[in-house]
Amino acid sequence: MQNTESYYAVIFTSKQQEDDSSYQKMAEQMETLAKQQSGYMGIESAKETIGITVSYWKSLDAIKNWKENSAHLFAQEKGKTDWYTWYKVRICKVEREYEFG
Amino acid sequence: MQNTESYYAVIFTSKQQEDDSSYQKMAEQMETLAKQQSGYMGIESAKETIGITVSYWKSLDAIKNWKENSAHLFAQEKGKTDWYTWYKVRICKVEREYEFG
Repeated sequence: MQNTESYYAVIFTSKQQEDDSSYQKMAEQMETLAKQQSGYMGIESAKETIGITVSYWKSLDAIKNWKENSAHLFAQEKGKTDWYTWYKVRICKVEREYEFG
Repeated sequence: MQNTESYYAVIFTSKQQEDDSSYQKMAEQMETLAKQQSGYMGIESAKETIGITVSYWKSLDAIKNWKENSAHLFAQEKGKTDWYTWYKVRICKVEREYEFG
Protein backbone atom coordinates (compact mmCIF):
# COMPACT_ATOMS: atom_id res chain seq x y z
CA MET A 1 0.00 0.00 0.00
CA GLN A 2 2.00 2.97 -1.26
CA ASN A 3 0.48 6.39 -0.92
CA THR A 4 1.32 10.05 -1.35
CA GLU A 5 -2.06 11.68 -0.72
CA SER A 6 -3.87 12.01 2.59
CA TYR A 7 -5.93 9.04 3.70
CA TYR A 8 -7.71 7.59 6.71
CA ALA A 9 -7.16 4.71 9.08
CA VAL A 10 -9.90 3.00 11.08
CA ILE A 11 -8.42 1.51 14.26
CA PHE A 12 -10.70 -1.22 15.62
CA THR A 13 -9.61 -2.62 19.00
CA SER A 14 -11.63 -5.40 20.65
CA LYS A 15 -11.94 -7.99 23.39
CA GLN A 16 -13.67 -11.19 22.37
CA GLN A 17 -16.06 -13.54 24.12
CA GLU A 18 -14.83 -17.09 24.82
CA ASP A 19 -16.63 -18.86 21.98
CA ASP A 20 -15.64 -17.42 18.63
CA SER A 21 -16.30 -20.46 16.42
CA SER A 22 -18.40 -18.51 13.93
CA TYR A 23 -16.19 -15.45 14.06
CA GLN A 24 -13.34 -16.40 11.76
CA LYS A 25 -15.62 -17.17 8.81
CA MET A 26 -17.43 -13.86 9.15
CA ALA A 27 -14.12 -12.00 9.53
CA GLU A 28 -12.90 -13.47 6.25
CA GLN A 29 -16.16 -12.62 4.49
CA MET A 30 -15.96 -9.03 5.73
CA GLU A 31 -12.37 -8.68 4.54
CA THR A 32 -13.32 -9.98 1.08
CA LEU A 33 -16.26 -7.60 0.95
CA ALA A 34 -14.29 -4.59 2.19
CA LYS A 35 -11.77 -5.12 -0.61
CA GLN A 36 -14.57 -4.58 -3.12
CA GLN A 37 -15.61 -1.26 -1.56
CA SER A 38 -14.77 2.04 -3.23
CA GLY A 39 -11.88 3.81 -1.50
CA TYR A 40 -10.53 0.69 0.22
CA MET A 41 -6.74 0.71 0.52
CA GLY A 42 -5.80 -2.21 2.76
CA ILE A 43 -6.20 -3.94 6.09
CA GLU A 44 -3.84 -5.14 8.83
CA SER A 45 -4.79 -7.12 11.91
CA ALA A 46 -3.30 -8.98 14.86
CA LYS A 47 -4.81 -10.61 17.93
CA GLU A 48 -3.35 -11.34 21.35
CA THR A 49 -5.05 -10.30 24.58
CA ILE A 50 -6.83 -7.67 22.57
CA GLY A 51 -7.41 -7.70 18.83
CA ILE A 52 -6.38 -4.75 16.66
CA THR A 53 -7.53 -4.33 13.09
CA VAL A 54 -6.53 -1.26 11.10
CA SER A 55 -8.18 -0.69 7.73
CA TYR A 56 -7.08 2.06 5.35
CA TRP A 57 -9.42 4.21 3.26
CA LYS A 58 -9.17 7.03 0.75
CA SER A 59 -11.82 9.21 2.40
CA LEU A 60 -14.35 9.57 5.22
CA ASP A 61 -17.09 8.89 2.65
CA ALA A 62 -15.50 5.54 1.80
CA ILE A 63 -15.52 4.64 5.51
CA LYS A 64 -19.17 5.71 5.85
CA ASN A 65 -20.19 3.62 2.83
CA TRP A 66 -18.48 0.58 4.27
CA LYS A 67 -20.09 1.11 7.69
CA GLU A 68 -23.53 1.18 6.03
CA ASN A 69 -22.99 -1.87 3.80
CA SER A 70 -25.86 -4.27 4.56
CA ALA A 71 -23.74 -7.41 5.03
CA HIS A 72 -21.38 -5.40 7.20
CA LEU A 73 -24.30 -4.07 9.28
CA PHE A 74 -25.35 -7.66 9.91
CA ALA A 75 -21.80 -8.52 11.01
CA GLN A 76 -21.73 -5.48 13.31
CA GLU A 77 -24.91 -6.74 15.04
CA LYS A 78 -23.48 -10.26 15.39
CA GLY A 79 -20.36 -8.70 16.83
CA LYS A 80 -22.34 -7.06 19.63
CA THR A 81 -24.52 -10.08 20.42
CA ASP A 82 -22.12 -13.00 19.83
CA TRP A 83 -18.45 -12.08 19.60
CA TYR A 84 -17.27 -9.03 21.47
CA THR A 85 -17.41 -8.04 25.12
CA TRP A 86 -15.88 -4.70 24.20
CA TYR A 87 -14.67 -2.81 21.18
CA LYS A 88 -13.64 0.69 20.26
CA VAL A 89 -13.43 2.27 16.82
CA ARG A 90 -11.25 5.28 16.06
CA ILE A 91 -11.44 7.05 12.70
CA CYS A 92 -8.09 8.72 12.03
CA LYS A 93 -6.49 10.89 9.36
CA VAL A 94 -2.98 9.71 8.52
CA GLU A 95 -0.83 12.83 8.69
CA ARG A 96 2.62 11.36 8.13
CA GLU A 97 4.21 7.96 7.56
CA TYR A 98 7.62 6.35 7.11
CA GLU A 99 8.94 2.86 6.62
CA PHE A 100 11.95 0.61 7.22
CA GLY A 101 12.88 -2.53 5.27
CA MET B 1 -8.58 6.20 28.06
CA GLN B 2 -11.54 8.58 27.86
CA ASN B 3 -11.18 11.65 25.69
CA THR B 4 -13.18 14.55 24.33
CA GLU B 5 -10.45 16.62 22.68
CA SER B 6 -8.57 15.83 19.49
CA TYR B 7 -5.56 13.57 19.84
CA TYR B 8 -3.12 11.49 17.83
CA ALA B 9 -2.49 7.80 17.24
CA VAL B 10 0.82 6.32 16.12
CA ILE B 11 0.21 3.06 14.26
CA PHE B 12 3.36 0.93 14.24
CA THR B 13 3.09 -2.24 12.12
CA SER B 14 6.06 -4.62 11.91
CA LYS B 15 7.43 -7.97 10.80
CA GLN B 16 9.99 -9.49 13.13
CA GLN B 17 13.17 -11.46 12.59
CA GLU B 18 13.21 -15.06 13.86
CA ASP B 19 15.24 -14.49 17.01
CA ASP B 20 13.55 -11.99 19.28
CA SER B 21 14.94 -13.11 22.65
CA SER B 22 16.08 -9.62 23.62
CA TYR B 23 13.03 -7.95 22.18
CA GLN B 24 10.44 -8.48 24.91
CA LYS B 25 12.57 -6.89 27.61
CA MET B 26 13.22 -3.79 25.52
CA ALA B 27 9.54 -3.56 24.56
CA GLU B 28 8.57 -3.53 28.23
CA GLN B 29 11.21 -0.90 29.03
CA MET B 30 9.97 1.31 26.20
CA GLU B 31 6.37 1.01 27.37
CA THR B 32 7.38 2.00 30.93
CA LEU B 33 9.35 4.94 29.57
CA ALA B 34 6.63 6.08 27.17
CA LYS B 35 4.18 6.23 30.08
CA GLN B 36 6.42 8.84 31.72
CA GLN B 37 6.44 11.07 28.62
CA SER B 38 4.42 14.26 28.49
CA GLY B 39 1.29 13.88 26.39
CA TYR B 40 1.19 10.08 26.58
CA MET B 41 -2.36 8.72 26.66
CA GLY B 42 -2.08 4.96 26.25
CA ILE B 43 -0.84 2.03 24.20
CA GLU B 44 -2.42 -1.07 22.64
CA SER B 45 -0.59 -3.88 20.92
CA ALA B 46 -1.13 -7.32 19.43
CA LYS B 47 1.10 -9.67 17.46
CA GLU B 48 0.25 -12.42 14.99
CA THR B 49 1.80 -12.65 11.52
CA ILE B 50 2.44 -8.95 11.81
CA GLY B 51 2.66 -6.94 14.99
CA ILE B 52 0.56 -3.82 15.49
CA THR B 53 1.17 -1.33 18.26
CA VAL B 54 -0.94 1.80 18.53
CA SER B 55 0.12 4.48 21.00
CA TYR B 56 -2.03 7.52 21.79
CA TRP B 57 -0.71 11.04 22.31
CA LYS B 58 -2.11 14.46 23.09
CA SER B 59 -0.17 16.28 20.36
CA LEU B 60 2.34 15.99 17.51
CA ASP B 61 4.92 17.60 19.81
CA ALA B 62 4.43 14.82 22.36
CA ILE B 63 5.08 12.26 19.60
CA LYS B 64 8.18 14.13 18.44
CA ASN B 65 9.56 14.29 22.00
CA TRP B 66 9.09 10.56 22.41
CA LYS B 67 10.73 9.80 19.06
CA GLU B 68 13.78 11.83 20.14
CA ASN B 69 14.08 10.31 23.64
CA SER B 70 17.63 8.93 23.91
CA ALA B 71 16.70 5.48 25.25
CA HIS B 72 14.02 5.26 22.59
CA LEU B 73 16.53 6.26 19.89
CA PHE B 74 18.76 3.38 21.03
CA ALA B 75 15.77 0.98 20.85
CA GLN B 76 14.94 2.25 17.35
CA GLU B 77 18.48 1.41 16.20
CA LYS B 78 18.31 -2.06 17.79
CA GLY B 79 15.00 -2.54 16.03
CA LYS B 80 16.59 -1.97 12.63
CA THR B 81 19.69 -4.08 13.28
CA ASP B 82 18.33 -6.92 15.45
CA TRP B 83 14.57 -7.26 15.53
CA TYR B 84 12.62 -6.12 12.50
CA THR B 85 12.74 -7.10 8.86
CA TRP B 86 10.13 -4.43 8.13
CA TYR B 87 8.12 -1.81 9.90
CA LYS B 88 5.93 1.10 9.03
CA VAL B 89 4.91 4.02 11.23
CA ARG B 90 1.82 6.11 10.59
CA ILE B 91 1.10 9.28 12.58
CA CYS B 92 -2.67 9.86 12.62
CA LYS B 93 -5.10 12.42 14.00
CA VAL B 94 -8.10 10.74 15.63
CA GLU B 95 -11.12 12.48 14.12
CA ARG B 96 -13.94 10.44 15.63
CA GLU B 97 -14.39 7.48 17.94
CA TYR B 98 -17.11 5.31 19.44
CA GLU B 99 -17.27 2.33 21.73
CA PHE B 100 -19.32 -0.77 22.61
CA GLY B 101 -19.38 -2.63 25.92
